[in-house]
Amino acid sequence: MALPTLVIGNKVYSSWSLRPWLLMKHAGIAFEEVRIPLYGPDSQARITAFSAAGKVPVLVDGDLRIWDSLAICEYLAERFPERAGWPRELAARALARSASAEMHSGFFALRSELAFNAREARSGVIPSEAARTEIARVVSLWGECRARYGSGGPWLFGAFCPADAMYAPVALRFLTYGVELPPAAAAYAAAVRAHPAVEAWIRDARAEPERLEKFERGHAA
Amino acid sequence: MALPTLVIGNKVYSSWSLRPWLLMKHAGIAFEEVRIPLYGPDSQARITAFSAAGKVPVLVDGDLRIWDSLAICEYLAERFPERAGWPRELAARALARSASAEMHSGFFALRSELAFNAREARSGVIPSEAARTEIARVVSLWGECRARYGSGGPWLFGAFCPADAMYAPVALRFLTYGVELPPAAAAYAAAVRAHPAVEAWIRDARAEPERLEKFERGHAA
Repeated sequence: MALPTLVIGNKVYSSWSLRPWLLMKHAGIAFEEVRIPLYGPDSQARITAFSAAGKVPVLVDGDLRIWDSLAICEYLAERFPERAGWPRELAARALARSASAEMHSGFFALRSELAFNAREARSGVIPSEAARTEIARVVSLWGECRARYGSGGPWLFGAFCPADAMYAPVALRFLTYGVELPPAAAAYAAAVRAHPAVEAWIRDARAEPERLEKFERGHAA
Repeated sequence: MALPTLVIGNKVYSSWSLRPWLLMKHAGIAFEEVRIPLYGPDSQARITAFSAAGKVPVLVDGDLRIWDSLAICEYLAERFPERAGWPRELAARALARSASAEMHSGFFALRSELAFNAREARSGVIPSEAARTEIARVVSLWGECRARYGSGGPWLFGAFCPADAMYAPVALRFLTYGVELPPAAAAYAAAVRAHPAVEAWIRDARAEPERLEKFERGHAA
């Protein structure tokens, strides 16, 4: 039985790829990794060979091709409910899925202005009012999850779940750009940053040669 | 036990609200409906009373507040697997979730240019190249689902499932703007349009008084 393969973008820029990659690493699911640097001359052709949607990440598992970070998380949650599943309690699970879906389809100002850059800290980027409103919403949402369900551990619902995988890139954006956070949110972002798999992702990102100006906003700090 | 309540936007414009509304109607799940016309002076305050995310749809079920169309679909699929569930076969379910997630987080050109308008047909809107590429992608995806899993009925996976709820608004956009479709896609869009619940939604939309110019592109046809 061949290992599943996760097709990802370059680690320095591909926030969406980090989501299922982190969930799989956290859960100890063995997989091969195919890295396709984004925005190069052959990037689109290489991605389309795996998925007609033309986007990373894509999980190849036997005959299955599952594209989209959230669909991959749902697949993993089904296959590995003990290690990669949603919270077991109905209300917690509903909140976790609502929060994950909100991330999946929104926060466009934040994601555009605080471009994901896993290589290094940046300074001098001032979020717009729209982005500040979204940052406040993320902070509030993290607070709600942690207050209601987080007592059993450092993650949004105590134990690590797909919602943490969905929000990990945002936590890293906050750290990259030095966004000021209240203590509880800062502690959560620090927990994300300290996860051994996130540590490994950042180490890999720093070894990548690609540098695209549009994702290198502000000043290297 | 009180009925669940689905908080939706006005039916003429709120494509996201149609998704869970249609799934619940199709599945015969009884619910109350709260309609909040979008973009009015008190719209945001009224929506925020149900969900801090500030968006419709929101499902209120007892103590639970589930926001976001896809999260609501997942919740319904869990609670009513026989009537509102994903396809039972693993590969079909993975494809259905991938397709639904692709809709949930993408197709921005299509959604912006072919503004959802359930009231009446429009003419004279010419999709950009970006929107045409997205239309072709939707057509291709529908074709893949129908070819692989659609033999048992008119829906993407034979029987109606959350993926149909997620794509129903797009099917209606195609009809509203007279987008030319190959026969298989045209047949699918026609099946969506002929669903009794979609028929009821459109009838309700036509009775709504709200008219916002930004969603009234092209000419009434």
